[in-house]
Amino acid sequence: MTQLSPTLQLASDLISRASVTPEDAGCQELMIARLEAIGFKIERLHFEDTLNFWARRGDTGPLLCFAGHTDVVPTGPVEQWQFPPFEPQISEGMLCGRGAADMKGSLAAFVTALERFVHNHPDHKGSIALLITSDEEGPFINGTTRVIDHLEARNEKITWCIVGEPSSTHKVGDVIKNGRRGSLSGSLKVQGVQGHVAYPHLVKNPIHLAAPALAELAAEVWDQGNEFFPPTSFQISNINAGTGATNVVPGHMDVAFNFRFSTEVTSDELKARVRDILDKHQLEWDIDWILSGNPFLTAAGDLVEACQQAIQAITGLETELSTSGGTSDGRFIAPTGAQVVELGPCNATIHKLNERVSAKDLDTLSDLYENILARLLAQ
Amino acid sequence: MTQLSPTLQLASDLISRASVTPEDAGCQELMIARLEAIGFKIERLHFEDTLNFWARRGDTGPLLCFAGHTDVVPTGPVEQWQFPPFEPQISEGMLCGRGAADMKGSLAAFVTALERFVHNHPDHKGSIALLITSDEEGPFINGTTRVIDHLEARNEKITWCIVGEPSSTHKVGDVIKNGRRGSLSGSLKVQGVQGHVAYPHLVKNPIHLAAPALAELAAEVWDQGNEFFPPTSFQISNINAGTGATNVVPGHMDVAFNFRFSTEVTSDELKARVRDILDKHQLEWDIDWILSGNPFLTAAGDLVEACQQAIQAITGLETELSTSGGTSDGRFIAPTGAQVVELGPCNATIHKLNERVSAKDLDTLSDLYENILARLLAQ
Repeated sequence: MTQLSPTLQLASDLISRASVTPEDAGCQELMIARLEAIGFKIERLHFEDTLNFWARRGDTGPLLCFAGHTDVVPTGPVEQWQFPPFEPQISEGMLCGRGAADMKGSLAAFVTALERFVHNHPDHKGSIALLITSDEEGPFINGTTRVIDHLEARNEKITWCIVGEPSSTHKVGDVIKNGRRGSLSGSLKVQGVQGHVAYPHLVKNPIHLAAPALAELAAEVWDQGNEFFPPTSFQISNINAGTGATNVVPGHMDVAFNFRFSTEVTSDELKARVRDILDKHQLEWDIDWILSGNPFLTAAGDLVEACQQAIQAITGLETELSTSGGTSDGRFIAPTGAQVVELGPCNATIHKLNERVSAKDLDTLSDLYENILARLLAQ
Repeated sequence: MTQLSPTLQLASDLISRASVTPEDAGCQELMIARLEAIGFKIERLHFEDTLNFWARRGDTGPLLCFAGHTDVVPTGPVEQWQFPPFEPQISEGMLCGRGAADMKGSLAAFVTALERFVHNHPDHKGSIALLITSDEEGPFINGTTRVIDHLEARNEKITWCIVGEPSSTHKVGDVIKNGRRGSLSGSLKVQGVQGHVAYPHLVKNPIHLAAPALAELAAEVWDQGNEFFPPTSFQISNINAGTGATNVVPGHMDVAFNFRFSTEVTSDELKARVRDILDKHQLEWDIDWILSGNPFLTAAGDLVEACQQAIQAITGLETELSTSGGTSDGRFIAPTGAQVVELGPCNATIHKLNERVSAKDLDTLSDLYENILARLLAQ
């Protein structure tokens, strides 16, 4: 095997640490050792079962922060992997292993980009920071959100934040995420009257009563989206009713659903429209709502511009701004007033068997991060 | 306590034997001893865990059979009963205990009616039989259906059958069942494509796809019923989809449903109509069908007439012919060509806590059975 680049070597070292969420498995200490060596001040922030750290180089603003996570999703059936998921391999130009794309490759690219940048610009402007958690793939209770609370409490403000989530589609840098949709979940209970199937006049079947309302919710156009956001989408994830017995009409039905919503509607508007549809069908219902995050957007500005220019300079690509896809920890950082973008490798294999990422892309990604650093913080 | 009538005494003795399905707990031997004493020839027919017996007096036709079961449904929470469920009491004119109405009261009334009838008509016409099982409330695999197979194999034919199921609504004899609806069940699987709720363009949500079809099935008028049958009814008893995770659109949905159907449609017609609705909504679906029983009907004839006249003579009531309610073992007997009616006490408390039956009604019921015997078989 030929010598690996520093980025690929570090990515491999991280992948070989089996940090299934909420485990960190030594990944953070590996990063910390490298960052301390180039002058970062480390703050270990351990909340409950979750390891986090905040590393900062410099005392003044503006502050450019790289945010990411060392935890990975479970492997699924190990025997169905081509290579053992925690024994990183390079095969046909791809670095293979759990976390290669989401997001240990990005973490390695952060660190090597910082090493080169600090070497070339030891007296850079402002400050550089890393916000690293081991709770992004889990319940995200004791991770980024707690670190942000900690920073806010002492009024430490991030100016620009690059989240290393795998934003790219076909080529590294072809897409960056400059915002995310909001996420609103509901647990709906529709009430009926239980009874024996043989006595239909004595029952109120909640499945029958709710079916037309569910059909209408599924068919509803919630908005058309806008320049930055795709149309708001509604999905029922779980539906359950019945005692198991086939001769009993159930007394109630449970339905779990989720909205991913644009800036064209508010969560209150969505709640009201759901209520109206349920009431129109004269259902007896109750909903527990959970708002996981409002939509956020980082429109034109220093950070988006620096990313676009760096991608153009290094790869020749005109990057696409997108707000699609799942939630990320960006939703906890944006409300502080920071500009936030996500820039990372291609996401085709994330959370799947045989997760992998182009080895060359990780070196390019490190160059991109370094180029952005230079545009924003070089003296 | 005053002396109980023979019918109430025997009913109490049967209730005190805790024969929760498929147990018999000695009920059948108690009946057998009484029947042997009045000249019945007993055939014990034990299949697997189920006790059954066939008792016959006489060798010629026509054959009048009383059919019933010694097993009872479970008690539910015993501490919520006013009296212990297997310690029969008479309280405010009601015989209380599990099985009082369904159907140990009827079994006692059979036996005492036979005792009086045989005493008065030792040389009656034709034959009298009892078909008793301990598997009516259970899976009904080794009960009446096996006994009927046994009789059919030797071409022993029942002319008239009275099933002691609690047919009455307000007063004993106000309703007799001269048939039952058919029961057709389906297990429907609707196929979709699983995925993350954040990527709606990559999923096919089976709940969304099926909702309009379920709404249409629930709203469908399957027939109008007829003189003897209420309209065919469709009920979904169970619906389940989802992985439990609230961010995953499930790959399929399971729906269990049941038809109670009249003689105006066939099970094949119902299957075809369900298929048409699912196909109209372009669903990818599969159904496992179970036909529990076709509808059966005993229209005008000797047996219905004898019941009507006996009820008129003893109680003064114009009895109502009905085919509503749950299935009974009559569905296994009717296909042999027998005329079948169900005649028993009021059914308000069956399968519930504090099951009870009017003590006076059981004595009346015994008189009714005796009167019917006399109309059909007295010399």
